[in-house]
Amino acid sequence: MFLTNTWYVAAWSHEVAQGALFARTITDIPLVLWRGADGAVRALQDRCPHRGAPLSRGRLEGDAVRCMYHGLKFERDGACSQVPGNARIPPAACVRAFPVVERNKWLWIWMGEPAAADPALIPDTFWLDSPAWRYRPDYIHYGVNHLLIADNLLDFSHLPFLHETTLGGSAGYADSRAEVKRLADGVRVERWFRDGPPAPFVRKLTGWNENVDRWNFYDFVLPGVLLMDSGSTPLGGGPGVQFRSAQAVTPESETSSHYFFSQAHDFALDDPAVTARLHADIVAAFKEDWDMIHAQQASLARDPHFKMMPLPVDNALGHYRWLFNQKLKAGPTPAAA
Amino acid sequence: MFLTNTWYVAAWSHEVAQGALFARTITDIPLVLWRGADGAVRALQDRCPHRGAPLSRGRLEGDAVRCMYHGLKFERDGACSQVPGNARIPPAACVRAFPVVERNKWLWIWMGEPAAADPALIPDTFWLDSPAWRYRPDYIHYGVNHLLIADNLLDFSHLPFLHETTLGGSAGYADSRAEVKRLADGVRVERWFRDGPPAPFVRKLTGWNENVDRWNFYDFVLPGVLLMDSGSTPLGGGPGVQFRSAQAVTPESETSSHYFFSQAHDFALDDPAVTARLHADIVAAFKEDWDMIHAQQASLARDPHFKMMPLPVDNALGHYRWLFNQKLKAGPTPAAA
Amino acid sequence: MFLTNTWYVAAWSHEVAQGALFARTITDIPLVLWRGADGAVRALQDRCPHRGAPLSRGRLEGDAVRCMYHGLKFERDGACSQVPGNARIPPAACVRAFPVVERNKWLWIWMGEPAAADPALIPDTFWLDSPAWRYRPDYIHYGVNHLLIADNLLDFSHLPFLHETTLGGSAGYADSRAEVKRLADGVRVERWFRDGPPAPFVRKLTGWNENVDRWNFYDFVLPGVLLMDSGSTPLGGGPGVQFRSAQAVTPESETSSHYFFSQAHDFALDDPAVTARLHADIVAAFKEDWDMIHAQQASLARDPHFKMMPLPVDNALGHYRWLFNQKLKAGPTPAAA
Repeated sequence: MFLTNTWYVAAWSHEVAQGALFARTITDIPLVLWRGADGAVRALQDRCPHRGAPLSRGRLEGDAVRCMYHGLKFERDGACSQVPGNARIPPAACVRAFPVVERNKWLWIWMGEPAAADPALIPDTFWLDSPAWRYRPDYIHYGVNHLLIADNLLDFSHLPFLHETTLGGSAGYADSRAEVKRLADGVRVERWFRDGPPAPFVRKLTGWNENVDRWNFYDFVLPGVLLMDSGSTPLGGGPGVQFRSAQAVTPESETSSHYFFSQAHDFALDDPAVTARLHADIVAAFKEDWDMIHAQQASLARDPHFKMMPLPVDNALGHYRWLFNQKLKAGPTPAAA
Repeated sequence: MFLTNTWYVAAWSHEVAQGALFARTITDIPLVLWRGADGAVRALQDRCPHRGAPLSRGRLEGDAVRCMYHGLKFERDGACSQVPGNARIPPAACVRAFPVVERNKWLWIWMGEPAAADPALIPDTFWLDSPAWRYRPDYIHYGVNHLLIADNLLDFSHLPFLHETTLGGSAGYADSRAEVKRLADGVRVERWFRDGPPAPFVRKLTGWNENVDRWNFYDFVLPGVLLMDSGSTPLGGGPGVQFRSAQAVTPESETSSHYFFSQAHDFALDDPAVTARLHADIVAAFKEDWDMIHAQQASLARDPHFKMMPLPVDNALGHYRWLFNQKLKAGPTPAAA
Repeated sequence: MFLTNTWYVAAWSHEVAQGALFARTITDIPLVLWRGADGAVRALQDRCPHRGAPLSRGRLEGDAVRCMYHGLKFERDGACSQVPGNARIPPAACVRAFPVVERNKWLWIWMGEPAAADPALIPDTFWLDSPAWRYRPDYIHYGVNHLLIADNLLDFSHLPFLHETTLGGSAGYADSRAEVKRLADGVRVERWFRDGPPAPFVRKLTGWNENVDRWNFYDFVLPGVLLMDSGSTPLGGGPGVQFRSAQAVTPESETSSHYFFSQAHDFALDDPAVTARLHADIVAAFKEDWDMIHAQQASLARDPHFKMMPLPVDNALGHYRWLFNQKLKAGPTPAAA
């Protein structure tokens, strides 16, 4: 079960280049994307209505795509404009088109009612396209349900355990109190870990041996977008470090997910080595998540009767799962809403 | 669902050599085949009735096969002739035997009622065993339902798209009119493409730069056999080229198929390079089919609710699928019929 | 369906070393095992009750294991002793613990009611830990149901066919009469093969060219343990050879099994080459079993309607399957029994 009337991150801007067809499946619907001559990105269902061949194996012709099985041609709005060997084009010969908005290096796609696709609903990720920030965009494919990744991102008490040598550090981090606020479309989490050791990746970056005040402030909003301000300040004074993270979990199917992520810094802007090191450390930590969440998914799949045991640390993810289920039950938002 | 009372191509003659057991599954029934001392080919169900071990892992002993798990021995008619450690042979200890006819380098097997197995029903493929023709026999395994391959072979309008640089050529080929005649057991397709560029594989072979009249005349008959006469004649006069093709699609299971094929020529009989080049070009084109049909199968498997959209170019395959379903519903032909 | 109130072989002693967590699934229940400072082995269900993460990906801390997802800590009896960030430990935060007994280099685990776990029920395998015997312990993983391996071990008439060049030899072995006695918890099989050629592995070991009297005496008891005395005596006189074999089939799931085995000898105790050769010959033969039983499982899986055909040679396995089904129907033995 997936949310439909919502903006999903479909791709990084650079993934959909001029002159090529790009295939990606979102909420079990295969899509073909391309960039028109005007620079705008189109998205059609990746299935020819004739015999079901994927259009992404087809040929881009101007701003249209031709199925390379029997040659049917589809315009960017999904209308069929040519059926070789047939003078008449059947009215049913069209494919579904999806609204796409490109903003701050992310391509957002609306999988629901096109009339309800309001770009004002897209979360603000300005630092992904700002000269004041640097980051390396990246992507990981997961073979798990998207909610298990959301669970992970909604409870940072796992940092000192799963990420002991990367994002974690002292076990005391898990004892620090996270303030959780309920948002209309998600959860706001604010955690201060005061007078504790710096995270391992921060120590590698700064060389700090003294304790810091560390913060992780983030919103995690439907359908799976994390927007985070984090950083650390050395107790002895001197400048701290600050990061902006944008992460998006987009369901590919019930058992697989796309994970787009970035960790931006607003210092050492002219030092690509800093960007590269931060990226490498994040990737190392996310590999730890990947391994654990896949092991968790295998464990859950083995026994469908197992019920997770809620703990107080699960209040953020409990609320997020409740919101998700409420919106799922409510069904598509009317276009007029 | 498979047709039973029908002749399937089980193998090329050379695949079943003297002195060895050959395993192949047809219509979900695993078979073991071997060639007796008299040169005739036997076919038994590839499963020992005792504990289910495959006989094809057994040992050929004269014109019998011994299961190499517990040693039961079966004669060529499927009767058990020895049970080690048991003086008495239980009457149920036999395996099913299937009629096999070897004709023109193909081994045809009858998967239905043996009494109904009339060799006169086998289509004529004389050129596969004629000194007037040359070809290289070949085989491809498909992980798709046999009807998707039949669809492909019943509508050549895909040639200029899927096979643009191999069998295809001008997009005008798809606009040429194919005459479709309904046969009792299949479809006859006759297509003339006049005054068009030669197919790429023909141009490579002949060096022609001028337009040609091109024809594809074929019968496609149950349970999946294509018999084709094709060729091209240069408009400026001079000798043309002609080919005879025999292709057979045999279901291995509901989701996999055997594909036997050949493309014979009646010119340059003493030039093996011509035979090799024609074979290589056909294989390249059939790889294009393989890729597309597997992508199509994946697309169809993802959404069982998807209905294909019939187009006028689908008249041949529509009739073939109708024939297939009629014969399936009718059930096995009475042996007396 | 699995037996619960029974001792299964879980591992060779050396597989569970000090200081490490060891994961193994038995009867579809994933387990984590470790060896405490006192040398005793603990076994807990390998699933954190919080979010289902495997504890075997956790950290051993003294005689407790910490889940390395969110840091919950579990004592050797399965009780939770710490929940990071939570002062109170929920009563439900515990995992199931299983009785383990280490005896003669095998770790036996009781998958049923702990109160019913009587170590006196464990079969005697004294030669696995005796200075009078030598062997090399080994393990093979099977992708088949455990009963197919039991079938194999309960009918040695397959030796001259499947193991023609390893354990087998003359086809006459299959005609020799095996005495089968019904035990309360299994089957006793006694077979003399008199005046026949030695088994190939015995000939390699001894160089004998003359005939021998050969015996295989074994018990095969629930839930899948074979205890065998076997050997051969040359007809011309002189010393014979004798072996003791302990083999255990432990279900991992309905479609996979653990197979622990050994072939001990009481001669040439100071010649490791003899131990190595015997081991290598056994492994070669068990590879023949592995190939055949996997092929058999594939054959059975293809057609769920297929019924095996009982033969007189199947009397031992018939009785064993009957016992297994009786015990399965009877359900767990009351702890008081």
